[in-house]
Amino acid sequence: MPDLELFIGNKNYSSWSFRPWLALRQNDIPFRETLVPFEFDNGNPAFKTFSPTVKVPVLKDGDLTVWESLAIIEYIAEIYPCAGLLPADRSARARVRAASAEMHSSFSAMRSAFPMNFHRPAGALAVSASVQKDIDRVVGLWSDCLETSGGPFLFGGFTMADAMYAPVVSRFATYEATSDPVATAYLEKMRTLPAWKEWEKAALDETWIIEAEEV
Amino acid sequence: MPDLELFIGNKNYSSWSFRPWLALRQNDIPFRETLVPFEFDNGNPAFKTFSPTVKVPVLKDGDLTVWESLAIIEYIAEIYPCAGLLPADRSARARVRAASAEMHSSFSAMRSAFPMNFHRPAGALAVSASVQKDIDRVVGLWSDCLETSGGPFLFGGFTMADAMYAPVVSRFATYEATSDPVATAYLEKMRTLPAWKEWEKAALDETWIIEAEEV
Repeated sequence: MPDLELFIGNKNYSSWSFRPWLALRQNDIPFRETLVPFEFDNGNPAFKTFSPTVKVPVLKDGDLTVWESLAIIEYIAEIYPCAGLLPADRSARARVRAASAEMHSSFSAMRSAFPMNFHRPAGALAVSASVQKDIDRVVGLWSDCLETSGGPFLFGGFTMADAMYAPVVSRFATYEATSDPVATAYLEKMRTLPAWKEWEKAALDETWIIEAEEV
Repeated sequence: MPDLELFIGNKNYSSWSFRPWLALRQNDIPFRETLVPFEFDNGNPAFKTFSPTVKVPVLKDGDLTVWESLAIIEYIAEIYPCAGLLPADRSARARVRAASAEMHSSFSAMRSAFPMNFHRPAGALAVSASVQKDIDRVVGLWSDCLETSGGPFLFGGFTMADAMYAPVVSRFATYEATSDPVATAYLEKMRTLPAWKEWEKAALDETWIIEAEEV
């Protein structure tokens, strides 16, 4: 019987924490949540006590420690295969992993320009060419996936790929990054999931972050 | 029956190409290699014809296109389970994936300071604090893995993690990044594999790269 404990940072800014959390909650998988707050971009030395990389998220299952959001979601997919985080079809599974790995290693210009921040009122920002290139690639990938699968999620049902791109969904909504109709419908679908609403509410309740920004 | 075609960039500089190529050759898995040269850091517009990200590596298996080195190796592990790229033990498998995903997304300071370059004579470079931090984390991770497994590879037998860290092995040797005895023994083990020697020889045969640097 799994005994899962997920260590996460704050909910407003910690985009990497959001990914495995959503994979678990979207599938009603039981786990204990241990939130260890950090300031935006400053990390937290307390992470040393539970994380080999001094970063979040980290998943513990008894004696086992799993780090890196992508590896955590692979582990969840293994111990809860019925959740469908990886499709049963081998080719679809390979494409889910490719899209997820691309998210894991790419889009640094966009991620840097658009920090995840549920408190920020929605509004567009002027973007550099490198940020626009990242946006265009994400929208192109999503469109390909959604047209091939028929939606409503990237590969039909909710998979690892949707969990991995969830913070990009948040960013694209906050910074009004795209008006593409297929991408916009996907943003709406993701942002109305009960698990999404639960995370969003908790992020908005983190008032210490607003105070810090007002100084 | 798989019909694998691996698209790679040049062998001297394309560290991402080296990873899945080594996973295949180390296990004598049949595949066709299609080398599409690019200049260091400049990419190649010709990648558009086969790669959804305009990057290498890409693996094709019939109609299926898999991109991202990590997802490519996951796919190889699935179609050739006997190769042992993922351990049979679930906890070990989770740790292999965590170490591999960390490589996939991290160490940008070290990767930028130490480009993979088989032509460069071995010799140390002065390094910044952020590069040293990356080196220290890699050495610490390798030591943990090798002490837990007993070696000779990170998790005992050759896994996905060894393929993912192969370019770091090359860089650490070229730039004399560490004198740690456990790490040094691992560098030696990896660099004497027949598959390694085959890639290295091909990289050294790419004389057009030397000419370009002499201009």
